[in-house]
Amino acid sequence: MAKRIALLGSTGSIGRQTLEVIENLGKGYRVVALTAGSNSRELEQQVRRFRPGLAVLSNIEAAAALERGLYDLDCRVETGPEGQLLAAGWPEADLVVVALVGFSGFFPTLAALEAGKIVALANKEVLVVGGELLARKGFLQLGQILPLDSEHSAIWQCLGGRSSDQVRRIWLTASGGPFLHQDAERLSRVTPEDALAHPTWKMGPKISVDSATMMNKGLEVIEAHWLFGVPLEQISVAIHPQSIVHSAVEFIDGTMMAQLGPPDMRLPIQYALSYPGRKATPWPRLDLFAQELTFTAPDREKFPCLELAYRALQAGGTMPACLNAANEVAVEQFLAGNLAFTDIPRLIAGVMAEHSVIQQPEAPALEQADQWARLKAEELLEQLADRS
Amino acid sequence: MAKRIALLGSTGSIGRQTLEVIENLGKGYRVVALTAGSNSRELEQQVRRFRPGLAVLSNIEAAAALERGLYDLDCRVETGPEGQLLAAGWPEADLVVVALVGFSGFFPTLAALEAGKIVALANKEVLVVGGELLARKGFLQLGQILPLDSEHSAIWQCLGGRSSDQVRRIWLTASGGPFLHQDAERLSRVTPEDALAHPTWKMGPKISVDSATMMNKGLEVIEAHWLFGVPLEQISVAIHPQSIVHSAVEFIDGTMMAQLGPPDMRLPIQYALSYPGRKATPWPRLDLFAQELTFTAPDREKFPCLELAYRALQAGGTMPACLNAANEVAVEQFLAGNLAFTDIPRLIAGVMAEHSVIQQPEAPALEQADQWARLKAEELLEQLADRS
Repeated sequence: MAKRIALLGSTGSIGRQTLEVIENLGKGYRVVALTAGSNSRELEQQVRRFRPGLAVLSNIEAAAALERGLYDLDCRVETGPEGQLLAAGWPEADLVVVALVGFSGFFPTLAALEAGKIVALANKEVLVVGGELLARKGFLQLGQILPLDSEHSAIWQCLGGRSSDQVRRIWLTASGGPFLHQDAERLSRVTPEDALAHPTWKMGPKISVDSATMMNKGLEVIEAHWLFGVPLEQISVAIHPQSIVHSAVEFIDGTMMAQLGPPDMRLPIQYALSYPGRKATPWPRLDLFAQELTFTAPDREKFPCLELAYRALQAGGTMPACLNAANEVAVEQFLAGNLAFTDIPRLIAGVMAEHSVIQQPEAPALEQADQWARLKAEELLEQLADRS
Repeated sequence: MAKRIALLGSTGSIGRQTLEVIENLGKGYRVVALTAGSNSRELEQQVRRFRPGLAVLSNIEAAAALERGLYDLDCRVETGPEGQLLAAGWPEADLVVVALVGFSGFFPTLAALEAGKIVALANKEVLVVGGELLARKGFLQLGQILPLDSEHSAIWQCLGGRSSDQVRRIWLTASGGPFLHQDAERLSRVTPEDALAHPTWKMGPKISVDSATMMNKGLEVIEAHWLFGVPLEQISVAIHPQSIVHSAVEFIDGTMMAQLGPPDMRLPIQYALSYPGRKATPWPRLDLFAQELTFTAPDREKFPCLELAYRALQAGGTMPACLNAANEVAVEQFLAGNLAFTDIPRLIAGVMAEHSVIQQPEAPALEQADQWARLKAEELLEQLADRS
């Protein structure tokens, strides 16, 4: 029987690549629902190609345009957050790919899990914010959430079904981003263009900036903690500028398993979709002889965001939600030219310093913490702007 | 219930390390038989420590000395090739570790497999010579032979139970040996001492010389072919002087899994003994930051033994037995100072050129080919000596 897939966030970078993977996988895979934000034109093309029974655009005008465009097809069109939730729990789907951005992916992910779906998750903020809640609800059992992130897919593959008590250390690799060799003092003057020029991966703007600040790796540390049940102190980051080793797992016996490949998101996406099998791909291969592989410790002073992420997870409860929301605001403002690159961690640290943690939060408390942190970040942003 | 182990070749390098591993594994493991060649003193110490019910020395006088030494213990002492076979099929054993050297390990391995034992195999010549026969007899099913070689243990771990049709390529890594950067013209003058000075691994003399000529890697290519059922043209060698990545598997989707660790044979030995679990070890760990990892293609002109191994497997039948026997003689003579280093491949190629291959040989035909090749090698050796 075909694997039936609902894809949330189909017009983003990961969404598009997911559809490319589904085309490569060929028969045995069927798209039953597609959702996006406001890009009605692209979603219409996708619907015509993949013929899902449900298409959702969050934006209400865009959804109306889509519905008109699809007049000749038997495809239900919905809108708003309710539309995303409908797609997440869509009865025809076995597997829900969550390729949304930021905290917006949390409720659809929760809805999919509550509907008994397997979730392939690209949206790391979901686990950063709600990992503890999802763990508490029993949704983080082996195989319920399949990671799409290249690093977490690598760890999943390295684990090979072994339990966390066989793990001595998870080694999350990081390219180091575009500013790995930049002087610390010059970092304050880097522009959004500089930050978006990632040396090895082509990605959306939010994750590119997160990669430049290394907050991306911090969020991934938290994500790895919840996905694999490994304590924070057993998760390390290794700077690996070649982006060939996507992560590694050191076992209690001293053996290390590593997963390597070209920096191509289609590989981890396909692994999750074809799991437990693998399927041949026509994409460029890894040339093992092309470069040497290097690993160094990250510079935690130059990239304080990494430290902030560790501290947020240690504080627990609503603190990671606060970290994530403050970071989302900071990145947005940096991209808009309203915040210096080096003020990103300052802003986040400032918000975290004023946050009163609620332990074992339910979803509404997480949402509140998220909103509180956004408002607090805007407030601190004005102070920073006044100061400069 | 405890895993009961018969260890064949307990006083060699792998044998000693196997006992060290068994001590680390602690309860749950019991040594029920030990065999060696002629070192009665060390075997007696091992028997006193591990208390097997059977001890075998191939040498008859040494066996008599051992029997006298063990007068106070309830341990049966046997001798000769029959003794090794008795230990291989020892009814009390579940797992037979074959840590013999050269073709001598073939019949004990066959005996162990015929007696329904699981064999942990360090003795690569067994598969080089008899791989086709063992495959034909159905003894190479998954899990019947567990590799102890670091490279094959790595491949086994990288495969993670996946079948050979998911494999695009096996990457066998090779340190390149002590002569990796030696001028080709100087190779004819290297001494046994030079050849025994392996840069990363401490090993016995035969395998050290094989590593210097790269015949070791050639034998391992053949071994990998039989162990994992992957065609020869999908097995490549990568020179990796750091000996950290012990081998890698590239899958059909483009993903590569690699196994890393310090160059310490105790790790692959323990993996085989504790499989499917892993157990903590107190041994030195891998420092991922200590060096960069490099991979290059081997120089097939400077190291013709690698090519000879590929050709022997392509010829099939008794040819790999012939390759192996000629190599054993050549290494022996090189170590004795009777053969130049660069004459090792010449001698082997000369023997192979005169061999009439018997396809699908039974064990006696393999033994005959082995003996024929040894005599032919001695004969050619005299001619080489006359010429120089």
